[in-house]
Amino acid sequence: MNSYVLKKEGFSCDQEELLANESLFHTANGYLGVRGCFEEGYPEGIKSIRGEYINAFYDIVPMPQAEALYGFPTQKQVIVNTCDTQSISIELDGEPFSLFNGTILSFSRELDMKRGWSVRRVLWVSPKGKTTELTFVRMASFDMLPLFTIQVLVEPKDWSGLVRFSSLHSGEVSNYSNPDDPRVGDATHRMVLTDRIYSDSSISVITAHIASSGLNFASAVGVSCPEAIEAECQKEPEAIVSQYAVNALAGKPSELIKYAVHCDSRRYGDDPARSAVELLKKALQSPVEEWYQRQAGYLEKFWNSAGLEIEGDESLALSLHFGLFQLLQAVGKDACSSIAAKGLSGEGYEGHYFWDTEMYVVPFFSLTMPEIAKNLINYRYETLPQAQQHARIMGHQRGALYAWRTIQGEECSGYYPSGSAQYHINGDVVFAIVQYYLVSKDISFIAEKAAEIVFETARLWMDVGSWHDGSFRINCVTGPDEYTCLVNNNYYTNAGAKYNLAWAAKFYHILEDSQMLRLVQEKTGITKDEIDAFEKAADGMLLLFDEERGINPQDDTFLEKEIWDFANTPKSHYPLLLHYHPLYINRFQVCKQADTVLAHFIHEDYQTEAVMRRSYDYYEKITTHDSSLSSCIFGIMAARLGEQEKAFHYFSESLNMDLDNTHHNTGDGLHIANFGGTYMGLVYGFAGLRIKDDGLYFRPSMPDGLTTYRFRFRYGKSLVEVSVKKSRAVFRMLEGEAISLQVYGKAYVLEDEIEVQLYRGIDNSER
Amino acid sequence: MNSYVLKKEGFSCDQEELLANESLFHTANGYLGVRGCFEEGYPEGIKSIRGEYINAFYDIVPMPQAEALYGFPTQKQVIVNTCDTQSISIELDGEPFSLFNGTILSFSRELDMKRGWSVRRVLWVSPKGKTTELTFVRMASFDMLPLFTIQVLVEPKDWSGLVRFSSLHSGEVSNYSNPDDPRVGDATHRMVLTDRIYSDSSISVITAHIASSGLNFASAVGVSCPEAIEAECQKEPEAIVSQYAVNALAGKPSELIKYAVHCDSRRYGDDPARSAVELLKKALQSPVEEWYQRQAGYLEKFWNSAGLEIEGDESLALSLHFGLFQLLQAVGKDACSSIAAKGLSGEGYEGHYFWDTEMYVVPFFSLTMPEIAKNLINYRYETLPQAQQHARIMGHQRGALYAWRTIQGEECSGYYPSGSAQYHINGDVVFAIVQYYLVSKDISFIAEKAAEIVFETARLWMDVGSWHDGSFRINCVTGPDEYTCLVNNNYYTNAGAKYNLAWAAKFYHILEDSQMLRLVQEKTGITKDEIDAFEKAADGMLLLFDEERGINPQDDTFLEKEIWDFANTPKSHYPLLLHYHPLYINRFQVCKQADTVLAHFIHEDYQTEAVMRRSYDYYEKITTHDSSLSSCIFGIMAARLGEQEKAFHYFSESLNMDLDNTHHNTGDGLHIANFGGTYMGLVYGFAGLRIKDDGLYFRPSMPDGLTTYRFRFRYGKSLVEVSVKKSRAVFRMLEGEAISLQVYGKAYVLEDEIEVQLYRGIDNSER
Repeated sequence: MNSYVLKKEGFSCDQEELLANESLFHTANGYLGVRGCFEEGYPEGIKSIRGEYINAFYDIVPMPQAEALYGFPTQKQVIVNTCDTQSISIELDGEPFSLFNGTILSFSRELDMKRGWSVRRVLWVSPKGKTTELTFVRMASFDMLPLFTIQVLVEPKDWSGLVRFSSLHSGEVSNYSNPDDPRVGDATHRMVLTDRIYSDSSISVITAHIASSGLNFASAVGVSCPEAIEAECQKEPEAIVSQYAVNALAGKPSELIKYAVHCDSRRYGDDPARSAVELLKKALQSPVEEWYQRQAGYLEKFWNSAGLEIEGDESLALSLHFGLFQLLQAVGKDACSSIAAKGLSGEGYEGHYFWDTEMYVVPFFSLTMPEIAKNLINYRYETLPQAQQHARIMGHQRGALYAWRTIQGEECSGYYPSGSAQYHINGDVVFAIVQYYLVSKDISFIAEKAAEIVFETARLWMDVGSWHDGSFRINCVTGPDEYTCLVNNNYYTNAGAKYNLAWAAKFYHILEDSQMLRLVQEKTGITKDEIDAFEKAADGMLLLFDEERGINPQDDTFLEKEIWDFANTPKSHYPLLLHYHPLYINRFQVCKQADTVLAHFIHEDYQTEAVMRRSYDYYEKITTHDSSLSSCIFGIMAARLGEQEKAFHYFSESLNMDLDNTHHNTGDGLHIANFGGTYMGLVYGFAGLRIKDDGLYFRPSMPDGLTTYRFRFRYGKSLVEVSVKKSRAVFRMLEGEAISLQVYGKAYVLEDEIEVQLYRGIDNSER
Repeated sequence: MNSYVLKKEGFSCDQEELLANESLFHTANGYLGVRGCFEEGYPEGIKSIRGEYINAFYDIVPMPQAEALYGFPTQKQVIVNTCDTQSISIELDGEPFSLFNGTILSFSRELDMKRGWSVRRVLWVSPKGKTTELTFVRMASFDMLPLFTIQVLVEPKDWSGLVRFSSLHSGEVSNYSNPDDPRVGDATHRMVLTDRIYSDSSISVITAHIASSGLNFASAVGVSCPEAIEAECQKEPEAIVSQYAVNALAGKPSELIKYAVHCDSRRYGDDPARSAVELLKKALQSPVEEWYQRQAGYLEKFWNSAGLEIEGDESLALSLHFGLFQLLQAVGKDACSSIAAKGLSGEGYEGHYFWDTEMYVVPFFSLTMPEIAKNLINYRYETLPQAQQHARIMGHQRGALYAWRTIQGEECSGYYPSGSAQYHINGDVVFAIVQYYLVSKDISFIAEKAAEIVFETARLWMDVGSWHDGSFRINCVTGPDEYTCLVNNNYYTNAGAKYNLAWAAKFYHILEDSQMLRLVQEKTGITKDEIDAFEKAADGMLLLFDEERGINPQDDTFLEKEIWDFANTPKSHYPLLLHYHPLYINRFQVCKQADTVLAHFIHEDYQTEAVMRRSYDYYEKITTHDSSLSSCIFGIMAARLGEQEKAFHYFSESLNMDLDNTHHNTGDGLHIANFGGTYMGLVYGFAGLRIKDDGLYFRPSMPDGLTTYRFRFRYGKSLVEVSVKKSRAVFRMLEGEAISLQVYGKAYVLEDEIEVQLYRGIDNSER
C-alpha cells in the first residue's frame, strides 16, 4: 500500500457512493476544480453533480427573506458551475461505452497525490461481448492553474475496429440545487449565459457572462488525437463537439488528450478569452507528460515542506496525506480567493468561505507554506471594507465585522441567529493573524496590512460589548455551537474577543517599538486612548465560571437548561438540525460541536487544567458532533488532557469522515476544514504543539494506534522536523537558526537535535 | 358636534392622507370590508389600495425562507382582495368627474356610526365651469352580511344635461404589496382567477377561485337607476360594465344604487354564486332605505349594550365611539373568523389574527356582547387541531401551541424570533377564556369546548418548561416586546403560563364538582396526576424579581444589558425596527411595547403595588411605543397607580392613533387592537375594573381631561351601568339579579344603585 495513493477497486452504482466518489476523486488546484464525474456520462435517473468551478467566481442570486427585517441580506453570492469540459463519449466498434451497460470485469479509481492526478481504469465487456481496457487520467495543473487535462487510453483486448471519441465543450450548464437541505444551494436559475462559441483549427472557445454578478469568463479546449483518421468539429447552440475516429488494434492503446483552460475576469481582466487561448496554446506546446512532470515536481516540494509521515499504519498515513492534499487542492492562491467550505469539490455551502479557513486551515499553511497562509489573511485584508460595511448594517458605528459566509466579502447568510450573530469570526481572523505572525515573525505584513484588521475588529468588540458589574460583557451573539443561538457571554466568543483586544494592544506596542506604527495609524486613526480601552476590556472580559461544577459555562444561561434527552433520541434523528426546530434545540443543553472546548484548545492559558478537564467531561456528554468541525477538536483536547485512547478515537473519526462518508453528504463536497483538523489532531493533539507569544510548546505523546509519526514545520527562518516514536521525541533542525522551545514545560534550545523521553501518564491529580 | 359622526371636511391630495382616509372611511361588518376609495377612481400616479375583503377568506402563497431550517413555514395564508364592486365612473354633460381635475368648492366625508354608513359629499366645478353636487353613501350591511351598497346622487347646480354612470364589476384585481415594509404583504402574483362572468337582466355575476387555497367565491351586483333613459351592459374579459344615462336637471338629484353581494365557499358551500344571486335578489326586493333602517336598528342595539358616553368632551367621545364602531366592523361573526390586526380595513399584516384579539378585543365583547366573545373563543377551539400540529412542529410531543399569526390556524410567521417564539399567545387565549367565563358564567361552554383548550395549552407549558433550582422555568421564548427576542423566563410569559396552569386545575375542579368533567376527560385523557403537576408548576413558576431595583426584570438577562442611547437616536429612526438590525436592538434595554407592565395590568395580584410602581417607572423610560399595542396599556397602569395625568396622556395618544395617523401607517389599515385598548383605557383604566375569580373590582377615578363618563356591562344575567362624575361613581343595576362587587377594596352588593365617593389621591407611601 502506498500512503500517497488513494485507491478504490470495484464498481458500485449505489447513488450515495457515486456522488461521494465524484468529490473524493475531484481534481483541483485552488483556482480550478473539476468533480470526478465519468467522462462518458450517466444514464437517465442516475444523479451526478457535473461541476467545474473557479474559486471565488460567483453569481449573485436573490435570497428572498420570509420577513425581510432591517439589514437582512436579500441576495447572496454563489459559486458558479462554469462549463462542461470533462465530457467525452466513446463508441467502441459501434457500441457506446457505459458503465451502466455491459459487464465490468475490473474497475478502479486512484488519486495519486505525489503525481497529482486521478486515474480511472475499466476493463469492460460490451453487450456484444467485446472486451476493452479504458484508462482516464485527469489533472488540474498546479503549474498552470487554469489548466485541466484528461488523457484517455482505449485498448481493445479481443477485437480491432473503429473507436469514436466525441469530446464535448459545453456552456449549457447549471448549478445543482436541493431545496430540502439548508446546507446545499437552492438557486435554480441559469447563471452562465454564453456569449460566443467558436472554434479555430483544433481549439474551441466558449465565452460567457454570469447572469447577475457582471463577471465573465472563457474556456478554451484543445484536443489531441494523434492517430485520428477522421476529425470533425460540430457546433451546437451552446456547445462544440469534436469527434475523432481511430482505427484501434487489439492489444494496442489509442489515445486522446483533452486540454481545457478556464480563465475568469476576476484574474484575467476584461478579455479572458484571449488569455485562455494563449494559455491553451502554451499548454499544447508541451506533451502532456511534461505537464505531469511539472505537477510531480510541485508536489514533491509540497510533501517535503509538510514532511508528514506515519510509520506502521499505512492506511492512517494515507488518510492524513489525503487530507493535506485536499487542503492544497482547495486553497486559493491569489488575493481574491480563500478556502470554500467544500473547497472546489462540490457546491455544498455554495462555495462560501467561513471561519473554517482561519481556525482549521491556516494553522497547516502557517507551519508549512507561510506564503499561502499570508495570502489567506490577505484575502481578509482585501475584504476589510465589506466587513466595515457589514458592521454598519449590524448597527455598529465603528469597527469591522466579517461576514459569516461570503465569497466577495458581503454577508451571504440568510439566517442571522446561526449566521451574522457569530461575531466570533472576528476573533478567529485575528487568531489566525497572530498565529501566522508568531510562526513567520512577519512584522512587515502586520505593519502594512494585518494590524488594520486587528484594530478594526477590536473596535467592533468595544462597540458590541459593554461594562456591567465590573466586567466587560458581550451580549446577543452566537458561538460556534449553532445549537444554542443568541446568547450572552458565550465563552468562546468572549475568550476570542479578549485575545483580539489584547493583541491589538500588543501589536500597537510592537509596531511603536519598531517605529512601524505610522502607516496603520494614518489609515485607522488609532489612538493610545483606544489602546488603553482595549487593554482594559481585555483584562475585564467576562469569562464565565460555574462554581458548583467547576467548569466554564458555554453562556450565561446554558447550565440552567435541561439536558437533551439523548436516551430517547433515535439515531435517525441526527443531525438534530434536520429533525427539530432550532427553537426547540436551543432550549436544551446540547451542542452541535466544540465550543467551550475549542476555546480551551486555543486559549489554554485562560483556565487551569482542572477546569478544562471538568469542562471537557461535561461538554463531551452533550455534544452530538453533528458538525464536521467537532471531532478533531475533541481529539486534540483529549490528547492535551492525557486521554490518549479517546484522542485516537476522535482523531480516527475525523480522519475517515469523507473517506467513509460518515456524514452521508460527501457527495456535496469534501469537508475541507476537517482535513485541517486531522492535521492539527496530529501536530497539536499528539505532538501537543502550541504557538504562544513567548515561543513554541510541545507535549508529545503516542496513542496506542500509532508507532511513529513525523512532521516538519517552519518557524521564522528555520525548518524543524519532529519525530515521535513510542518512547521518545526527536526535534531536529533541518535549516536555519537555533530556536528555543518548551517540551513538557521545560525550556530547550534547538540547535541541531534534541531528544526527549515521552512523558507517559499525565498527572490527573487536579481532576 | 355629534359624537357618533366622524366628519372630515376639505379635500387634500396628500398621498398619506388619501390612503389613511381609505382606511378611516372603510365600511365593514365583520364578514365583508370595502376600503373607502373614490368610486370614480384616481389618476395615474396616485396610490390607492382599492380593496374588498372577506374575513378569513384567503389564498396560500409561498413564503420562501432564505435558509429553510426544520419547521420553518414556507407558505402562508393571505387575505384576498376579492373583486372590485365599488367603481362607478361618472360623466357630467360630457366631462368626466374627478377630484383631481376641475375645482372643488366643498368636500366632506362622514362616517355615521349610528346609521352605519359612510357618506362623501362633493361640490365640484368641472373644467368647463359646470357645478355639480355629488353624494356617495356606502354601507356594509349588518343585517345581511354579504351585502354592500353604494348610493350615488348627482345634482347639477347650474346646468342640465346628460349624466352617464359606468358601474364596474370586476374580477381583475390583485393584492397590494410593499416589499420594503415587513408589516405589509409582499405577494405579487394574481390570487383571484375568474371562472365565469355573466349577466342576467340587471344582475352581473363573477365567480372565481383562489389560486392556491382551493377556495372560491362569487360576487353578484345589481344596479338600480330609476331614471335611466339608456342602459347598456358590456362584458369585458374579466369584468362587466353597466352603463346608464340620465337626463339630469339643474337642482334635481339623479340617483344610482348599486347592490353588491359577496359569498365565499367557506360560508356558502360549493355554489356560492347561487347564494349570491339569491341574496342579491332579496336585497333588491327592498328599497335601500329599508336596508338603512335595519342597519340603524342593529346599531341602536349595539350602542345600547355598550352604553358608553362621555360628557363634556364631544371630540373624545367621538374617538371612543369610533373605536367601538371599528371593533364591531372588524369582528368576525361566524366560526371560521376572528379579528384581523387591521380588521377589514386594509391588507396590513395580511388579514392575520394575532394575540390582539384575545388581549385587546375580547374584553370589550365579553362585557357587552358575550355571544361575539364566545364566537372568538370558538374560533380558537375550531383551530385547536392546527395548534396541536404546530406544537409538534415546534418539537413538543404534547399540548397545543397557537400560531403567532394565522387565518386558518397554521403558522404564517416567517420569522420565528418575533413570531412562533411568542409562546405567550397560549396564555393569552386562556386569559380571554377565563375572563369570558368570569363575566358570562358560561360553564357549559367551558365543559363543551374551552376546557380542552385550557388543558392542551397547559400541557404545552409542562413540555416547554422545566424545573431548575426549585422553580419552574420557561426558556427560549419571546415576550410581547419584540425588541428583545429569545430569552429565558420572560416575566409576561411566565405569569401567563402560571395563570394558564392554575386555571387548568381550577376548571378541572369546577367541572368535577359540577359533574361536567366527563366530556373533556374523554377528549383529552386529562388525569388528576397531570392536574397536580399543573398546580405544582403554577405554584413554582419563576417570576423574576430584581432585589436591587425592586422590580420584575423582563427576562433573566434584561437588566444586564446597556440602556438604549435614546438621547442620540434621531426621531426619524423610529420605529427602531425599520432602522436597526434586530440583533442590534436585542442587545439593549429598549422595549417596543408594554411587556412586564402588561403582565402587571392583567395579573396584578402576582406583585405588590410597590413593585408594580417601580417597574412601571423603570420600563416607561425605555419603551418606545413603536407598537400600537403599547400606549393604551401604559395608560391603564398609570391610572392603576394613581397617575391620572399620565394615564390621560397615554389614553389620548391611543385614542387618536388612527384618527391622527400618528404611526403613519393608517393607510395600511386601522389598528384594531388599539381601539380595544382605548375602551380598556376607560373601563379598566379610569374606572379601574378588574375581573377576578372572586368577583368584580373597581377603582373609579376621573382625570382632569374628563368630567363624566358612563358605560354598561353584562355580568352573568345582569346588566350594569357605571357612571362616573367628578366626585362620585354610581353603579346602577339595569337588568337582572343583584351582584357583589368591590370598590376601592370595599365589598358592596349592587341591587339597585350604589353611589361611591371618588377616592382622590392614591397613597404613594409604598413608593
